[in-house]
Amino acid sequence: MRLQSLREEVLEANLELVRRGLVIDTFGNASGISREEGLVVIKPSGVAYDRMRPEDLVVTDIDGNIVEGTLRPSSDLPTHLALYRAFAIGGVAHTHSRSATAWAQAGRPIPCLGTTHADYFHGPVPVTACLQPAEIKTNYELNTGHAPFCSGRSPAQAAHIAWILEEVAQMAYASIVINSGVAPLADELRDKHFLRKHGPEAYYGQKKRS
Amino acid sequence: MRLQSLREEVLEANLELVRRGLVIDTFGNASGISREEGLVVIKPSGVAYDRMRPEDLVVTDIDGNIVEGTLRPSSDLPTHLALYRAFAIGGVAHTHSRSATAWAQAGRPIPCLGTTHADYFHGPVPVTACLQPAEIKTNYELNTGHAPFCSGRSPAQAAHIAWILEEVAQMAYASIVINSGVAPLADELRDKHFLRKHGPEAYYGQKKRS
Amino acid sequence: MRLQSLREEVLEANLELVRRGLVIDTFGNASGISREEGLVVIKPSGVAYDRMRPEDLVVTDIDGNIVEGTLRPSSDLPTHLALYRAFAIGGVAHTHSRSATAWAQAGRPIPCLGTTHADYFHGPVPVTACLQPAEIKTNYELNTGHAPFCSGRSPAQAAHIAWILEEVAQMAYASIVINSGVAPLADELRDKHFLRKHGPEAYYGQKKRS
Amino acid sequence: MRLQSLREEVLEANLELVRRGLVIDTFGNASGISREEGLVVIKPSGVAYDRMRPEDLVVTDIDGNIVEGTLRPSSDLPTHLALYRAFAIGGVAHTHSRSATAWAQAGRPIPCLGTTHADYFHGPVPVTACLQPAEIKTNYELNTGHAPFCSGRSPAQAAHIAWILEEVAQMAYASIVINSGVAPLADELRDKHFLRKHGPEAYYGQKKRS
Repeated sequence: MRLQSLREEVLEANLELVRRGLVIDTFGNASGISREEGLVVIKPSGVAYDRMRPEDLVVTDIDGNIVEGTLRPSSDLPTHLALYRAFAIGGVAHTHSRSATAWAQAGRPIPCLGTTHADYFHGPVPVTACLQPAEIKTNYELNTGHAPFCSGRSPAQAAHIAWILEEVAQMAYASIVINSGVAPLADELRDKHFLRKHGPEAYYGQKKRS
Repeated sequence: MRLQSLREEVLEANLELVRRGLVIDTFGNASGISREEGLVVIKPSGVAYDRMRPEDLVVTDIDGNIVEGTLRPSSDLPTHLALYRAFAIGGVAHTHSRSATAWAQAGRPIPCLGTTHADYFHGPVPVTACLQPAEIKTNYELNTGHAPFCSGRSPAQAAHIAWILEEVAQMAYASIVINSGVAPLADELRDKHFLRKHGPEAYYGQKKRS
Repeated sequence: MRLQSLREEVLEANLELVRRGLVIDTFGNASGISREEGLVVIKPSGVAYDRMRPEDLVVTDIDGNIVEGTLRPSSDLPTHLALYRAFAIGGVAHTHSRSATAWAQAGRPIPCLGTTHADYFHGPVPVTACLQPAEIKTNYELNTGHAPFCSGRSPAQAAHIAWILEEVAQMAYASIVINSGVAPLADELRDKHFLRKHGPEAYYGQKKRS
Repeated sequence: MRLQSLREEVLEANLELVRRGLVIDTFGNASGISREEGLVVIKPSGVAYDRMRPEDLVVTDIDGNIVEGTLRPSSDLPTHLALYRAFAIGGVAHTHSRSATAWAQAGRPIPCLGTTHADYFHGPVPVTACLQPAEIKTNYELNTGHAPFCSGRSPAQAAHIAWILEEVAQMAYASIVINSGVAPLADELRDKHFLRKHGPEAYYGQKKRS
């Protein structure tokens, strides 16, 4: 993958987080990885989104050493790198979106209460104390007392999942207020919805061209 | 009814769901039926709303066999068909709108707490386990762990009712938070409001031209 | 007061309710009174706001007899008339705004929890069973199981108060969630804020020209 | 500092409060101070934001005596002056923003539940009975039964902090609903986040030019 193209994808993913209302102030960042070159492109720290250009993004290696760029990388870079090491993913998105962050602050996993959730997340969205290798089980999670991290095949998909997570977090919030003892979705229905989109037997949407 | 005109009505109803903020991502769909021809027109599965054209819609018979269209129909087609078989309706709208979905996820019917509700829904909006014929009692309902389905004389009216249901769901949510033991609206007032709009003695709004 | 001018004021007040997001569908209406002529101008029933013209409004006498207009008046006309008989007011606004309606549906008065409230409402916003003369104590109230009615010197002021009531209702909602046993504002502070705007010693804002 | 420039900064900070949706009606005001001249510039009382010009702002000395301006100053002027006397700040912003006001009305400090909070506020945002000198401990606070006051190096920064406070108040609200016994952020993490932005060792964002 050409680095310039990855810079543009990562910038676009950062802007998508803003357009979806998932970012407050400068609280959020997206990154992407070129596995061939072993390089990560990430948002610079504390820079306003409306002034950001592709050349402002910071390029690091997988250990976080800066390879290109004159600005400091996002202070969340170590978490992005931990996710890239643990999963075969192409992009990471981190936000402080209101409802998902509320669950992270409450220190409670988001239970799988409906098909909206099950279409994207295979069971509860877990809360981690911090990103220690032994803890990493899914490529989406809530950092206790912090906020969500999501990932996907590309920076664009990671930003998309960050959006859906916020919607799911908001619905789960209202669901537990209406019925505090609400039971999670039956395993069978959870699997049906997750696997129709993500498994080898996926059938939702239109057939992929082969 | 001409099929082309029904296609345009169904597309417009799908777009109305989006304009009202009732649809997240591609989570929602509207359909319409031509009783004369025995044909149902429905949104294709997983296609973005802003790119959808009338010719992208899928035409099926009442058993779900595809009659026209190269795209897969919405995966919610069986529920639409069950509603068309059970009621003398012309359109169905399904959304994952935030508050109505929260009630569906909580597995609780939306109680009739006020005249806003009673103007449209004759008592609680029920929760169904799934759409088995024996369960179908109203032409609006919440699927447990899933989301609402609404119907009307036309696709446009079904989309309109999906909007009002979301508003009513949001108000009921806040009402039970303020007063968890809140009593439902008195039967007399519920009937007065429902029947002034829906019964043979309806008087709300302007007189229909005869 | 010229009737044509009152028609325009009432239309404008109805549109202001829509612009402030206080009206869902056609659930809301504003009216005005000309005391000299003994005439009330009110929104017609069930007519969409974006198509409404001054000549669509309905003119009635204080007993609700239609004096001008070919459309049916709002079905809430009797409540408007009861308020005009009870108070020296010039306009009434009725909405189904989300938070105020939730309090009405919960059957609980909105407690006076802060200065935002006290600047406009002198103590709790009461809930009435229905508008019987013996019950009428303030010119703003919540109809149990229905929604709020507000009034003011003019249709414009009534619409303004309907807006503030919704904001106050929303804040009170969140306040009792945070602290369910929250105490009302001290009487002294409540009076200071209400009287600085409404009493003979009012000092808030700029001096009125004399 | 030139007084005309301060007038423009204060007007801009007042308009920023409106743009961020923090002000309802005329409930809010920002001010700035010129320490060299001992003069405070503040919003006039009860004047609509969309008509306000720099020359409408009121200039007072540190004791609240009007030095320039024909309009009355905001009725919150005494609180602004108390903050200027207590802290080395350049601007104050006061709003009735929905969530922060709900905490003030509930009479509960906003607990520090996450890093979003800790990046701006060093521990709970306190509730004060009223601004007595002995009580003043931070340059941001909630007035019991009233609403928040924030300050910063400049009017613009005070307005910015008023915005973040509202976001933090909203997240904390949802967090305690999800988990009413939620524990505050660990002191160490709170300090790390606050001090990376505010202490002498601050490292968040880009290096300041020297």
